[in-house]
This record gives sequence, C-alpha cells and structure tokens, in this order.
Amino acid sequence: MPEPARPALSAEPLIALYTYTRTATLELCEGLAPEDTVVQSMPDASPTKWHLAHTTWFWETFLLTPYLPEYRPFHPQFGHLFNSYYYTVGTMFRRPQRGLLSRPTLAEVRGYRAHVDAAMLHLLEYADGDDEIAFLVTLGVNHEQQHQELILTDIKHLLASNPLLPALRTTPSPPSSRETELDFIAMPDGIAEIGYDGDGFCFDNETPRHRVLLQSHALASRAVTNGEYLEFIRAGGYTEPSLWLSDGWAKVNAEGWQRPLYWSEDLSSHYTLGGPREVDLAAPVCHVSYYEADAFARWADARLPTEAELEHAASGLPIAGNFVESGFLQPIAGGGAGLTQIYGDVWEWTSSAYSPYPGFKPLRGSLGEYNGKFMCSQLVLRGGSCTTPASHMRSTYRNFFYPDARWQSSGIRLARDQ
Amino acid sequence: MPEPARPALSAEPLIALYTYTRTATLELCEGLAPEDTVVQSMPDASPTKWHLAHTTWFWETFLLTPYLPEYRPFHPQFGHLFNSYYYTVGTMFRRPQRGLLSRPTLAEVRGYRAHVDAAMLHLLEYADGDDEIAFLVTLGVNHEQQHQELILTDIKHLLASNPLLPALRTTPSPPSSRETELDFIAMPDGIAEIGYDGDGFCFDNETPRHRVLLQSHALASRAVTNGEYLEFIRAGGYTEPSLWLSDGWAKVNAEGWQRPLYWSEDLSSHYTLGGPREVDLAAPVCHVSYYEADAFARWADARLPTEAELEHAASGLPIAGNFVESGFLQPIAGGGAGLTQIYGDVWEWTSSAYSPYPGFKPLRGSLGEYNGKFMCSQLVLRGGSCTTPASHMRSTYRNFFYPDARWQSSGIRLARDQ
Amino acid sequence: MPEPARPALSAEPLIALYTYTRTATLELCEGLAPEDTVVQSMPDASPTKWHLAHTTWFWETFLLTPYLPEYRPFHPQFGHLFNSYYYTVGTMFRRPQRGLLSRPTLAEVRGYRAHVDAAMLHLLEYADGDDEIAFLVTLGVNHEQQHQELILTDIKHLLASNPLLPALRTTPSPPSSRETELDFIAMPDGIAEIGYDGDGFCFDNETPRHRVLLQSHALASRAVTNGEYLEFIRAGGYTEPSLWLSDGWAKVNAEGWQRPLYWSEDLSSHYTLGGPREVDLAAPVCHVSYYEADAFARWADARLPTEAELEHAASGLPIAGNFVESGFLQPIAGGGAGLTQIYGDVWEWTSSAYSPYPGFKPLRGSLGEYNGKFMCSQLVLRGGSCTTPASHMRSTYRNFFYPDARWQSSGIRLARDQ
Amino acid sequence: MPEPARPALSAEPLIALYTYTRTATLELCEGLAPEDTVVQSMPDASPTKWHLAHTTWFWETFLLTPYLPEYRPFHPQFGHLFNSYYYTVGTMFRRPQRGLLSRPTLAEVRGYRAHVDAAMLHLLEYADGDDEIAFLVTLGVNHEQQHQELILTDIKHLLASNPLLPALRTTPSPPSSRETELDFIAMPDGIAEIGYDGDGFCFDNETPRHRVLLQSHALASRAVTNGEYLEFIRAGGYTEPSLWLSDGWAKVNAEGWQRPLYWSEDLSSHYTLGGPREVDLAAPVCHVSYYEADAFARWADARLPTEAELEHAASGLPIAGNFVESGFLQPIAGGGAGLTQIYGDVWEWTSSAYSPYPGFKPLRGSLGEYNGKFMCSQLVLRGGSCTTPASHMRSTYRNFFYPDARWQSSGIRLARDQ
Repeated sequence: MPEPARPALSAEPLIALYTYTRTATLELCEGLAPEDTVVQSMPDASPTKWHLAHTTWFWETFLLTPYLPEYRPFHPQFGHLFNSYYYTVGTMFRRPQRGLLSRPTLAEVRGYRAHVDAAMLHLLEYADGDDEIAFLVTLGVNHEQQHQELILTDIKHLLASNPLLPALRTTPSPPSSRETELDFIAMPDGIAEIGYDGDGFCFDNETPRHRVLLQSHALASRAVTNGEYLEFIRAGGYTEPSLWLSDGWAKVNAEGWQRPLYWSEDLSSHYTLGGPREVDLAAPVCHVSYYEADAFARWADARLPTEAELEHAASGLPIAGNFVESGFLQPIAGGGAGLTQIYGDVWEWTSSAYSPYPGFKPLRGSLGEYNGKFMCSQLVLRGGSCTTPASHMRSTYRNFFYPDARWQSSGIRLARDQ
Repeated sequence: MPEPARPALSAEPLIALYTYTRTATLELCEGLAPEDTVVQSMPDASPTKWHLAHTTWFWETFLLTPYLPEYRPFHPQFGHLFNSYYYTVGTMFRRPQRGLLSRPTLAEVRGYRAHVDAAMLHLLEYADGDDEIAFLVTLGVNHEQQHQELILTDIKHLLASNPLLPALRTTPSPPSSRETELDFIAMPDGIAEIGYDGDGFCFDNETPRHRVLLQSHALASRAVTNGEYLEFIRAGGYTEPSLWLSDGWAKVNAEGWQRPLYWSEDLSSHYTLGGPREVDLAAPVCHVSYYEADAFARWADARLPTEAELEHAASGLPIAGNFVESGFLQPIAGGGAGLTQIYGDVWEWTSSAYSPYPGFKPLRGSLGEYNGKFMCSQLVLRGGSCTTPASHMRSTYRNFFYPDARWQSSGIRLARDQ
Repeated sequence: MPEPARPALSAEPLIALYTYTRTATLELCEGLAPEDTVVQSMPDASPTKWHLAHTTWFWETFLLTPYLPEYRPFHPQFGHLFNSYYYTVGTMFRRPQRGLLSRPTLAEVRGYRAHVDAAMLHLLEYADGDDEIAFLVTLGVNHEQQHQELILTDIKHLLASNPLLPALRTTPSPPSSRETELDFIAMPDGIAEIGYDGDGFCFDNETPRHRVLLQSHALASRAVTNGEYLEFIRAGGYTEPSLWLSDGWAKVNAEGWQRPLYWSEDLSSHYTLGGPREVDLAAPVCHVSYYEADAFARWADARLPTEAELEHAASGLPIAGNFVESGFLQPIAGGGAGLTQIYGDVWEWTSSAYSPYPGFKPLRGSLGEYNGKFMCSQLVLRGGSCTTPASHMRSTYRNFFYPDARWQSSGIRLARDQ
Repeated sequence: MPEPARPALSAEPLIALYTYTRTATLELCEGLAPEDTVVQSMPDASPTKWHLAHTTWFWETFLLTPYLPEYRPFHPQFGHLFNSYYYTVGTMFRRPQRGLLSRPTLAEVRGYRAHVDAAMLHLLEYADGDDEIAFLVTLGVNHEQQHQELILTDIKHLLASNPLLPALRTTPSPPSSRETELDFIAMPDGIAEIGYDGDGFCFDNETPRHRVLLQSHALASRAVTNGEYLEFIRAGGYTEPSLWLSDGWAKVNAEGWQRPLYWSEDLSSHYTLGGPREVDLAAPVCHVSYYEADAFARWADARLPTEAELEHAASGLPIAGNFVESGFLQPIAGGGAGLTQIYGDVWEWTSSAYSPYPGFKPLRGSLGEYNGKFMCSQLVLRGGSCTTPASHMRSTYRNFFYPDARWQSSGIRLARDQ
C-alpha cells in the first residue's frame, strides 16, 4: 500500500497556507484573557495555551529539526512539555496535568510561536518543490486545524463550568428559523468505494480506498433538531433503560445526565460561545454523546448510519455548510430539499467503530503514531461542525471519539433499514 | 426480519436436553467447597453460587412464571437477588456486590435448583409441540451453557488469587507435544455470507444472515503458542509503546502487565484449574487481552482476523476441538495440516467491534435485553475454548468482551493482508 | 517505665482461661453457615473465618513457636495469610483482600484451631509458674476477646447488607422499658489519676498511670436513647451544617447519612443480630459515628466527655452491665439513680484523641506493634458494649476508632461544662 | 465564658493596619503572571487569585454589608464564588474546583479589591471607637495574614510541579552556616496555664486560658536540621515500618515518599520560592508531614512535644525569628544558647490533636465557623515559619493541619521524657 498521495506544491502557496493557518489559530483566541488559557477543565480537554504551544512544537519537531540544519529548539524542555503522545519522539508531561503549567506564560508561548514561524518561513522559502516538506507542511496545517477546533470545544467546556458563564466573544444571532420536515431518502444497496485516493491531502486513516458492501437503507434529510430531542426528553428518554445501551445507561446514572451538555435545567437555554442563548428548536441538537444519539435513534424507531453510508452519501455533495468561518459557533437551523447539513453544524455520530480500513498502514516513523494507535473503543463521526474550519473537511474524513464524549460539537443523523 | 428460527422439538428430547444441561452445571462445581462458591473476586466475575441461582432464576422467570399457571416463585426476593441485567423484568441487586450474598447458602441454592427442576419437568411433560416453549428451553439451555463457562473462568480467577493456589480438581496432564510450524493459508476475496439462517438454535446477535465483502487475506494455520508469546515477551514486547494501541499501553502501565494472566513471574509456570503447571510451549497462549493480542500481531508483522474472515473459514469445518468435555480445562498443543484449532482451546480475538448485523432486531420483550444492549465498545471472539461446552458452539457464534478482559480463555490467531 | 504488671498464674487457671476463651469464640459462630464466614463486606471488616484463623496464628506465633521447641507451624503459608499487621514478624496478605481467601475452608480452619489448641494445652501443662508465658497467655486471651467482639460486629455488617436480612441466631427480646429521665451529675475539678497500675492484665496503651487535671463538669446519668436521637433526626439534625464538624458534614453528604447505621428508612426498625427489630425508644442509640455523636451533643447544648472524665467516673463502679454474655447482642433500656450504663450496652465516644499517655512505652519486640502505631487520627471510646465479653472490661480500657466508624457498637454519653 | 477580648482601637491605627495588610498581600504576589494566579495544583491548595478575592469577600461580608448601610456588593455572584466554608452565610463554589474560575480575571479581582478598600476606608473613618468594628477589623487583618501565608505555600506547590521550576522571585541567599549542637533543655513538671487572656487579639481557639498539668520533660534547643534528617533517610528511615505510625506507613507506600517534599531525587537540592537551591545541612528541615516528624522522632529516640509544652516554653520568649519579612522564604540555619528557633523558620508539629480547650466557645454567629468545626483529626503546629508575617504570631497561636500535609512550612522539634 502506498503512502498517501503528496501534492507537489510550490513554496508560495505553502507559505500562504502556513501563514493563514497560524494566524487563524491566534484569531480564535481573541477575547481570551491569559487566565483563560491556562486551565484544564477536565482530563480530556487541554488548556488553550497548551494547544498554542503544542501545535508549534509539531512544526519544530517534524519540520524544523529534521529539515533546517541550523535550527535550534526554542527551549530545551519544551519538547517534554508540549509533546502530546509521540513516544518515539521522546518523553511527555502527563496529559491530565497540563493545567499545572502556568509557565511558560501566554506571552512566552506567543514568542515561541513567532520564533518558530520565522524559522518556518525561512525553511519554506528554500524548500521549493520538495515533496516531503510539502506533505509535512500540509499535514502540519491539518494538524493545527484539528487543534483549532479543540481550542473552541475545550474553552467552551471551561467557560461553561464557570457560574459567571462568560462568553468567548459576541457571536451573531442565528437567523430566525422554522423546523423543516424530516424526510428519509432511500439509498440502494450495492458495492461502493470509500476512502481517499485523490491528489490532495488526507490522513492515513482515510486510506486505502476500498470497496464496501452497502445494504439498502434510507438516510434522514437533515440532523435531529433540538425540538425533536426535547420530545425525547419529555417522553422520558433519560429514564427508560430499555432505550439505552448497557454502558450508556450506567453512564446516565453515574453522571446524572438528563439533557445535552450545556443545557439549562429548565431546558429553555444553553451555553454557547456567545454566552447563554435560548434553545432554537429548529437547530440541530448538539453536545450529545454516542449513547444519547443511539438511544434517541432507538426511541425514534431508527438507527444511526454507518460511516460507509454517510461517506457514500456525502461524496457527491459540495463541501458547504455552517463551519467555523460563519462565526456562529453553534449549529443553526437549516433544511430544504434532499440531503442537507451533511457538512458542518454537527459532527454526526455513526455506528461504525473506529477501525483500520482493510490494508491500512500508518505513516512511517513517528507520525505513524498520529492516528493508528487510537483505533479501539472509539466511534467514527462524520461531516464536520460549526467549530471546524471548512478547508479541513473532506467526504472521506474520519473523526473519532469515545462513546461518552459530549464536549465536542456532536449531533445526530438518523438512518433506517429499507 | 423474522425471529430466529425455532426448532419444533417434541418433549422427550427437550427433557433430556434440560436434564443433561442442569446436571452438567452441577458437575462442574464438584470439588468446590461452599466457601468457594460465595466470593466475587472482581466486579466482572460472579460467585459460583450466584451463577447457580441466576441460571435457575432464568428458567423461573422466562418459562415457569409465564407458562406454568400454578407455579409460585420459590422465594419472593430471589427475583431481585438473581436478576442479572433485565430492567424490564424488575429490580436487581448491584452486580459488584454479588459477593456480599452469603445467603441463600449453597445448600439453599441447590434446593432452589431442585424446586425449579421439578417444575420444569412438569412443564415440559405437558408442553409437547409448543414451539414457543421449545424455543425458550433451547435458549435457556444455551444461557446455562454460557454460565457453565463463566463458572469455570470466574472460579479460576478466584482460586488463582489465593496464595495457596488450590486446584479446582485433578485434571489430566496434556499429551506431550511439539510445536508445529505456523503456516498462513490464503483466502481469496469476494462476497461471502455470514450469520445464521439454519433450522437450529442461534442467538439473535447472529442474525440476520447477510452478505459481506472479504478482502483477500491469509489466516494462520493454528493459534499463537506460548512459545511464540514468550519470544514476544523476551523481545521486550511489554516495554515498547510503539507496538501497542494507546489505550492498551495505558493499561499495561496502570496494571503493571508483563505477561499473560496466571503466569508465574519467572514465566515458567501458570495456574490452571488443575493447579500450577509448567507452561507448555506448544500449547496456545491463553488469558491475553485484546490489547496484548493486537500488540503481538503487530510485533509479528501480522494482524488479527475480522469476524467475517473467521466465520467464513470456520463454516466448512467440523465443530471439533478441545472443549470442556475433554477435561483438560486448558489449551493443549495441536496443529497439523490446514486450518486447525478453529474450534476449542482458546476464544480467538477478532478486530471486529461487537456491532449489530445489518438489519439486526433483538428478540421481542425482556429477552431483547439479552444481547443487543451490549453492542458497544466490545470486540468479537470466535470459536469457543477449553472451557466451552462443545454443543454450545456454532460457526456463527459471536462471543464478546471488552478489550482489557483477560480472565476468559482468550487467545490469538494471526491473519495477514495478501 | 516498667512493662505492664504480669500476674504469676499457675498452669491450671491458665488452661481454664485458655480453654474457656477458645470455646467462647467458636460458640459465637454458631448459626453461621460456612458461606457466611468467608465474606469481607468492607475493607475495615474481616471475614469470620479470618478472625478464627488469625487468633490461632497469634497463639502459634507468639507462644508456640518461641516456647515449644518441638512445635512446627501448621501450614507454611498461614503466617503470611493470617498475620494482621505485624511487619516485624513477616509479610502479610493485603487486608482489603481477606475476602478472597475461600481456602482454607472453615473446616480446615477449625482443624488449625484444634491443632494449635492441642499444642497450647501441652505447653501450658509444662509452663507452670513461667511469668513470661503467663503474661503472653493473658495477652492472647485478651486479643482473642477483642476478635470475639469484631466477629459479631463484622458479621452484623455482612448480614445487614443482604436484602434477606438473615439473623445470626434467635436472640431474646429485650425487657419492656420506659425511658428514664436524663440527669447531669456534677463532678468537681482537681487532679486525678488515670491509667492502669494494678496486679492484673492491661494493654500497654493503658500505661503508665499518671496524673491528669480535671475541670469541673457534669456527666449524663445514662446513654443517649433512640428516642432522644429520633428527636435530633426529626429536628433536622442531618440537614443543618452548623451542628457538624466540617469533616463530618462532608461525610454526611458523601455517604448520604440520614440515620444511624442499620436503621430502616422509616426510622421504625433496625437490623439486630436477632434480625430486624422495632426501635426501642428507651434503649441507647447505637451504631453512630463520632461525627454523629458530636453533632448530637452540640444540638443538645452539651459536649462529649473526655476519656479522663469517663475513667475517673467509672473507676469506682462495679464492672457490670449489658455485655455479650446477656445474649441480647443489642443495647437495652436501663437507667435508674446515679451513673448508669457506664459499662456495657454501647462504647461511648469521647472527645479524646487516641494518643500515648505521658511516658508511654510500647511492649518490647513485635508485640509493640499491637497498639502504639495506631495512635493517630482515632478517638477513644470507653466502657464496653453489648458485644464485649464482660471479663474483657476495665475502667482503664481504651478502645479506639476513626471518627467515621459506625459498624461498632458505639453510642453517646453527654457531658457539660460546669 | 466571655468573648475574646477586644481592643478598643481608634480609627487611625485601624486604617493604618488595614492598609498595611492589604498592601502586603499584593506585594507578596509580585513576580506572578496572571497565569500563575489561576491554577489549583491540588484540592488542598487554592489559586492566588482566589485568595485575593476571598480575603476581599471577607471584608465585604463581615464588615461592609452589616456596618456600611449604603454598601452594595461588588458583584451578585462573588458571594457564591468566594465564600470559603461559611454555610451560615450562603452557598459556595466547590473547593476542588476553584481552579476552574478563569474569570473574574486577575485585573478584575484587583478592581474588586480596590472597590472594597475604598469602602472600608470610608467605614473606618466613621467607625471611631466602635469596639465591634475594631474587633472585626483586627480579625479581618489576621484572616488576611493567614491567607498571605497560604498564598506563598500554595504558589510554591504550583511552581514546584512545573518542570521548569520557575522562581517566584529572586530571594536573598541564606547566610553561610554551621550546624550547631543539639541540646535538650530540662523543663520541670507542674501546673501551668495556657491559652490567651491578654488585651490584644486572639482567635477563639486560643481560649479560654486554663490550667494544664505538665510532666517533666526536655525540649530540643533548636529545630531538626536538614543534615540530621539526611542521616535518617540514609539510615533507611523511609523503608523501616517499625518507625512509622500505621497510617503513616500506608501513606509512605501509597505516595512513594522517600524524602521531604520539594527535595531533588539525589537529595542535594530542593525547590525554594527563589528557585532550586542546594540543601543547607544546618538549616531546619521543612515540608515534612506529621508522619515523617513522628517517625524521625522515634528514630532519634525522642518524641514530639505537646502543644502545652511548647506554649509554656515559648511564653517567655520574644517573638523574633525568620518570618516572612526576612525575605528568605525558606528556613535558615540558626542556633545558639538556650531555646532557639521557637518562633519562625518552621511550624513545629506537636503531638497534640487539635481539640477545643476546656470550656471553649466559638465566636457567635457565622464567624463561629472560623475555627471550631475543624477540631477533629488534625494536629496542632506552633511557632510560625519563614512564610508567616511576624505580627501574626503569638505564644498561644494554634495552627493545625492533617497529619499527611507536607506543603506547609512544617518542621520538627524534638522532646524527651525526663
């Protein structure tokens, strides 16, 4: 199996891509006080400051150190502090303690970023036509985009845990909306192909492209709305064990789940990055775990789609939707004819375990730790969300989280056997 | 999708089947002191006494109460004490506390069994030709067989945790053996069918039979041996993070895993139900988790098979092997030409998440809780083991455990992409 | 400071004492099934079978091995299995796992007891007049008596956790009763002496006898009754933080305490070793923690006594009361003129931390681990209880438990500053 | 028993006292980045920012709200966020989550301080001669001084957990030193008085003054040094169970303690607020728990003093020593003739449980929650430390911590029975 295809980019687009991405990361943090960037609100989340430094470490480790001979690491201990999980690169500070690192300060981390940016621009000027570097830059950009989304979801978790419920910044009000009808669109059975084999960038976990057998089924025309989810709650969804996976029911009881994360107790409002907002009944429900998605589907006499079903349906559609660039930072009502909201708004839980594709081979070397070692006990989510950069998305893109994760922009699309 | 096929049995074979199964359960417990039958050595395991009572409760709840009008439950609180996880039937005593139930005593539980057995025989005499009852009896027999295996694996965990290392009973010495060569047998790609659609009994999770697409691959001719696993250990398998799934590596470190469960520190002997025994290098390695199976496969430049690959390979083979009836209660060396050890010896971890088959529908009513609600975060194992009753096995049989489970008779078969 | 006084006993009384004590231990276990004797219902409690073996180990380790030259330990691993906490003697099986030891069986432990008893009788016949042995025998008897009480309190905890609420055995109904008036009896200030300096046996923690300064105070004439405690509950005692020590309030909330241990939710009955019984309003409240005792005292505008106050008051009184020999195995209503219930019924919590007396020296050698190393973070209780052997009691006796312990026969006597 | 004596102060000294104290708090924080002030490095510690806000809340709640009619709370939710543990005042944010509060920012908290300071100065100008207010101001000053010490010990814990080991600020090098000889100074037995009854301020827990009976004993002339403690380590102190209290030995093993907190693994250096420094063998050992102090004393054939012994010895001595004002922020070598280091350098663990004095009555109202409810399971420490403001100290002062606490400036003075 070949390595993922590598685009032969010239230096100029690479520099533009690099600069755009690095700037976008900092722009996301506007509105944050230095104090906000330190705290780790739970073991799964990381401080903003850590994200800013870790993405910088990525460039330093995988581009500057191997390819820029005169480069010296910014600080001898940053490798230890900001390595996330690459055992083959070196030691790492324990993940659940990232919130202890009040130093380096935000200003120092910004200095680290500037130092690395300068060296990267230097490298890129002279790297014209080097496929290896071009590939790694594209990988680094995609890596940084993933952390852009995590910065938003992690800071949301932190700010929402503060009784003051501070907004990240002022966000536009979503357009007024009415719930659109839910259709189920028939999809025939047959052999399809999924996985990436284009000329652009993809992660190793999207390869190789391979044939899959689809059963005949139907896909919901849009994501499940807050209004529909409210019906589920009011019908006693959270108190009826027969709707739940066994592990899910245990979690509901252990954690006292009674509604999506960030919803107020009276079910009328929810915390958004723009502060507390009224729940829009026509907008997609968000911040539900796989357990909740699965229980809702059972209650609705439906099921969750597989990742192959979603990829097959998505592959012909334009990559457009409510992504981070819209500025809403929350799902908005949509709908219309045909399959809508396939991209953006909410990551859609699939019933597919995150497993290697047949013939999968991870990247060679340390970057092989990027994806492959997480292929156990997680579920695939598809389509991107209101916190995802639009240019990060592909029809073949595989996101993955544990079934109890709720702090991502995760929602529900229904499917049915035909 | 129809309910699983129900054999139309006449009363006599049902009575024989029932009696044989119930007797076999008690025979497994020979050699146990009343004290042994009380203890719960970890939350995942249950006391023998609880298994004896729970299987009895199953007959009482799903056969006697609905079908024998004059039947009265043996004890008003046994429903609460011995319900395992059927929320739709009633409340249940918390699983991790089953070891607190010193009462009812073993003798009282035997009385409970006798009481229910008498009523069952009464019911079966008059149930001639009733398909519903015939199906439920077969289900109850299969249920009791599953607990027969659990009795053995759970009591093994208990006895092995006692520094005295008491044997369950004297077991025969395995035949002397030499390790056979490991071949990889090529399997072509193409559409295959898996799942049950015969006339006999199956669990709902084996249905519906459906088409799958197999990639071309090769299957190892036998299970991985203790000798091969020892090489992995000596090559530093437990200290090299790049071999492990991320969750597996965390577990290795949190639990201090350095060898299969029940092995002595010097790697020369292991605890068996016949007491401590020398490790037979030619016998299949047993009591490894999915994480260990997966790491071993990576080290061996191979992978674990999918459940479809294993079912397809197994479907033409006779269901014969080292099952519980052999009396060894441990895997034994085997081998020879072609695919061997497909049945018996060790449950073989597959890389397939335990998910519903396309179009899966659980049984109606409370028995729908039997399998479906566990379809998350577990992996499928195939083929049965030295602790499985032979008559319990089918090529379509799906066993499932969490990836960190080690106390089952679980081992490894390798596969490779072609 | 001298070693505690050692009575010079002749062999015959020693033999009688030994035999009486060993027999009494077994008699306490009448009514228990083998299954009951295995289970450890919480880390602080031990299985009956473990108590039976550990007390036997004590004789083997501290009498037979050093003083009977031809003696061979009964089993080479019992030293490891049944050593409680004597690091200077050897290794020990982890306390929270005592419930895993289904073997040796109860019958085997009885065999162990018989073996050691025979050797002990042999030793005692020839040990006439040996002060060292006489002291150790008396210590062993007192040690075994402590475990007699623990057998009862630990088995009570186990049986009460079983929804069947089985009785240990039939116990006599307490005499009908009326609550007696509560008086406060004035005690003058001045120098007093506490601690043991008699000719009989005492534990090292009761020495040396020393002077203490008492403030003038008043002691309640009897223990706090269930009726009085019920008033506290109904007045909202468990919901008013200002009544509680900070640690106590945290415990109330973490554990959901709303009433004494073993009380039914409707406050009308409680579990006793004779099975569930109606709460006798005139009997002393039992199974309360120090936190509850302290909160009750604050609510009652009183305080708990110090251990010096209680010892001073007790020192002139006959050692009589509702001890284990009465057979009730629960506190009974009492009262009358003057100080009553000073001995028996319930261990009375004092406000005194369990600390060494001025000049305290532990026993030499391994037996120095008996008491001294526990002198931190525990509180002293005084006077014995309905589960204590009468002959075990002394006015100088110091019992001690952590402030959150509730499973002992612990109750409340009030005091007030004058 | 009367309320503690209240000094009748005129407004001017009160204003000076208030201003001095509030300024001193902020001066301690010089050198801290906003990021440093947010993090909670363990549940027992609080973020600097929280300390700055909580002390301000104290003035607002106990002075401004009741005594300044026109005062309006600065923010409606700050009462909830910055109440520490006063249930009678209102709800409170959960202590272990204080580190989640990135908002209000440090700048906003400084604004809160300024707002309250202005109002306090207004109140104090018009409160001339009001004894109640004078008492509360003095209490507030002493409260704020306690938090000044906690700011230092909590931030030390945070900075030391960062692999970069950042200094709080440059601290002076301790003077060069030689270890002085350790003498034991005889103290006769007899009746003494302890507790406060002067004209100045004291906490309620120092009252009432009362008689105690002292045994004859000897007190070490100085604190135990790092050099002496190093001998204990090298003699195997941390590996010999017979030296330890049972709870202490469990802690040593659970936490892997092998040296004082903040020491380097090679025992040559330790983290100080001035950054890593060589261990000065002649300086008092610091950051040891009660368990370690007690084990050291046992190893040294000595014991820890009681609080009465220490108070009696201290009562005639001038309150002088290495307090926070010296700027070292670590203990320094001392010694000389007679009792030295009684004040400053390290809080000295006593063997006295933190209990109410005979006749103790907490302050009336909410301030009664200040001290009394903690009188369980903690030990008294005496004398103040290098992180204590000098003016905060008294011979009667009772500090208290749990026996496993190590992050305070706690050390050891030995005593012996005579």
